[in-house]
Amino acid sequence: MHRTVFFISDGTAITSETVGHSLLTQFPDVRFSQVRIPFVSDPGKAQEAVRRINEAAEKDSAPPIVFNSIVDEEIGSIIMASDAVTIDLFGTFLGTLERALGVKRESKVGRAHGVANPRRYEERIDATNYALNHDDGVSTSYLNADLILVGVSRSGKTPTCLYMALHFGVKAANYPLTQTDLENQALPSFLKPHRAKIAGLTIDADRLSQIRETRRPGSRYASLKQCYWEVESAESLLRMAGVPTFHTTHSSIEEIASRVLLQLGLQREMF
Amino acid sequence: MHRTVFFISDGTAITSETVGHSLLTQFPDVRFSQVRIPFVSDPGKAQEAVRRINEAAEKDSAPPIVFNSIVDEEIGSIIMASDAVTIDLFGTFLGTLERALGVKRESKVGRAHGVANPRRYEERIDATNYALNHDDGVSTSYLNADLILVGVSRSGKTPTCLYMALHFGVKAANYPLTQTDLENQALPSFLKPHRAKIAGLTIDADRLSQIRETRRPGSRYASLKQCYWEVESAESLLRMAGVPTFHTTHSSIEEIASRVLLQLGLQREMF
Repeated sequence: MHRTVFFISDGTAITSETVGHSLLTQFPDVRFSQVRIPFVSDPGKAQEAVRRINEAAEKDSAPPIVFNSIVDEEIGSIIMASDAVTIDLFGTFLGTLERALGVKRESKVGRAHGVANPRRYEERIDATNYALNHDDGVSTSYLNADLILVGVSRSGKTPTCLYMALHFGVKAANYPLTQTDLENQALPSFLKPHRAKIAGLTIDADRLSQIRETRRPGSRYASLKQCYWEVESAESLLRMAGVPTFHTTHSSIEEIASRVLLQLGLQREMF
Repeated sequence: MHRTVFFISDGTAITSETVGHSLLTQFPDVRFSQVRIPFVSDPGKAQEAVRRINEAAEKDSAPPIVFNSIVDEEIGSIIMASDAVTIDLFGTFLGTLERALGVKRESKVGRAHGVANPRRYEERIDATNYALNHDDGVSTSYLNADLILVGVSRSGKTPTCLYMALHFGVKAANYPLTQTDLENQALPSFLKPHRAKIAGLTIDADRLSQIRETRRPGSRYASLKQCYWEVESAESLLRMAGVPTFHTTHSSIEEIASRVLLQLGLQREMF
């Protein structure tokens, strides 16, 4: 079974796509073709979107699904008149919120993923630069770090740090445990003063070996034996050091990031 | 006016927080305290969440707002019975979708930001590594690039590339225009074969000067005069080279990324 899905917004369409993806995961047997139509900010663009929706309806011989997060009611009503089944985020919920809050909406377009607060926005860019400058043990001065991810090479530290920086404005450093650290079964001395903000990442040795194999095929670094030794040594080191540790093998970046932030008590607003 | 807002989910809570932020931007005069409660995956955790919600209701003397994206109906119903006004994403929309698709939901927990498709997931990690290895002109071999952002130093290229890699699995390189490029008023020769996948970023000179000033205070690099010259030269170079160019001064990373992907026709599913 096949359906065309549209994510439509007067802004980036990130909100409608996020909601759409969440809901569509509940229908794993339907094959969805997905089309993003961002920046629908005037009636002409809305009519063009409706043309594409109706074209898909005809081609599929079935109504498309539209996830609509257009704020402007006039432009939104053009979309609502298409041949699709429309999930209307603002239309559905803003009334409830107005009643709950006892105030009227302001109906400004495209605010959700814009630069709402310039100062907070700069924190986000600073955090991203921090993550880059403190990636992979490049700099080990962690005074300003909000958190430090520790684990063996290729356990998922870098993408998780970048994600946390971009999405939560968190200054996330990462340090790859070295052969010496693993042999000593102790965190290096420059990490010890920061133990309260360290989280460990670990991974199944066979998965680690696969990942390393694509980078350095046939190397000792990628060998199962080396990976087993590193993972076991790292897990025992982290356990002894009392560092909360998370398994990344079957987790997405979002899941790891959420768990780490929760564990370390870093309650930051998401961008 | 003040209200407490909860983002609650059996997964990361990213979906409910995204929706919540979008809707709350429509009420700029209300001060919201925001609390994320992810991984509410059993009745005990739901009851603990309800306890926190009701505590906030009492403290605020006003019902909190709950954005709930718990999939499981039993666990969800515990949240629905709190003293809050609850916006229930799945409850509200899954019925509509079931009717539109003519199939029943599967109600699997926490799928939205998990590893749905391991192969696509690897593309995402590869893209992130690609962005890191092709950041700031480090490597200028662009054969495998999906796109290349070009602009003066600190015009927003790096965070935008990382964002596009993490969110869209797009292999995004970036190249900082050099003094020589600007004087020659031409793209360097290694970029010319890739013109169809190049986008330019530009920024107001005075904003650029501010940004650079925080990195190298008092430097020629940060001076208004130098920034004006670089921005003007870069804009004229990009115009002559026929490169579509985007202004970053008042745009968020999400907005820039969305516009660039739209312009270059890169229709990738969002992570």
